[in-house]
Amino acid sequence: MEKVGVSMKPQNLFSKVPDSLKDELFETLLKTDHCILERIISSGQQTKPGEWYDQDTNEWVILLRGGAGLLFEGEREVRVMHPGDYIHIPAHHRHRVEWTEAGQKTVWLALHYR
Amino acid sequence: MEKVGVSMKPQNLFSKVPDSLKDELFETLLKTDHCILERIISSGQQTKPGEWYDQDTNEWVILLRGGAGLLFEGEREVRVMHPGDYIHIPAHHRHRVEWTEAGQKTVWLALHYR
Repeated sequence: MEKVGVSMKPQNLFSKVPDSLKDELFETLLKTDHCILERIISSGQQTKPGEWYDQDTNEWVILLRGGAGLLFEGEREVRVMHPGDYIHIPAHHRHRVEWTEAGQKTVWLALHYR
Repeated sequence: MEKVGVSMKPQNLFSKVPDSLKDELFETLLKTDHCILERIISSGQQTKPGEWYDQDTNEWVILLRGGAGLLFEGEREVRVMHPGDYIHIPAHHRHRVEWTEAGQKTVWLALHYR
């Protein structure tokens, strides 16, 4: 089993957040044969207009700081995510990030699995 | 693939927390063939004196609210967990919860995997 970033030394999800981010930051916290756990930090970014995420893996994702709006294909209403909100996104369920808060960092924890 | 609690309706990790808890509360948020994601709520509980957790699965766990002290077998010092702190506990690595905050609920998110 391949493991990335596995440590018995406690680390903090909200530390080591860069002051400024041109792009969203994706970091793998744990990688096993069947799942990947990652931290995502957004800073006002959104998915490019007209583009969608179309993922091969299922995703369980929680927003822990900041705020964001998610749009799912076929829906008209953007879902606003507040701290603590989590959602399950089945593989190939197309979605996009309409907005993330510009005034502060948005911190996500995402579990991708097959 | 068996899935438990999988919903595309956003839910909040910090909601539906009972006012009083005699025992720790364990709730499965997601169950797949290879991993289980669970919410744990503690309210001053600790592992019984002299007892240890000895788990068949690996565990990645993050404390998101409250505070707790973890002790690993063979170590003298209790590791204090603050909000955002996460740690990886290999299967069969014996450990115990020495304390959790009594004045507020402690909320954990734990990923168990093989």
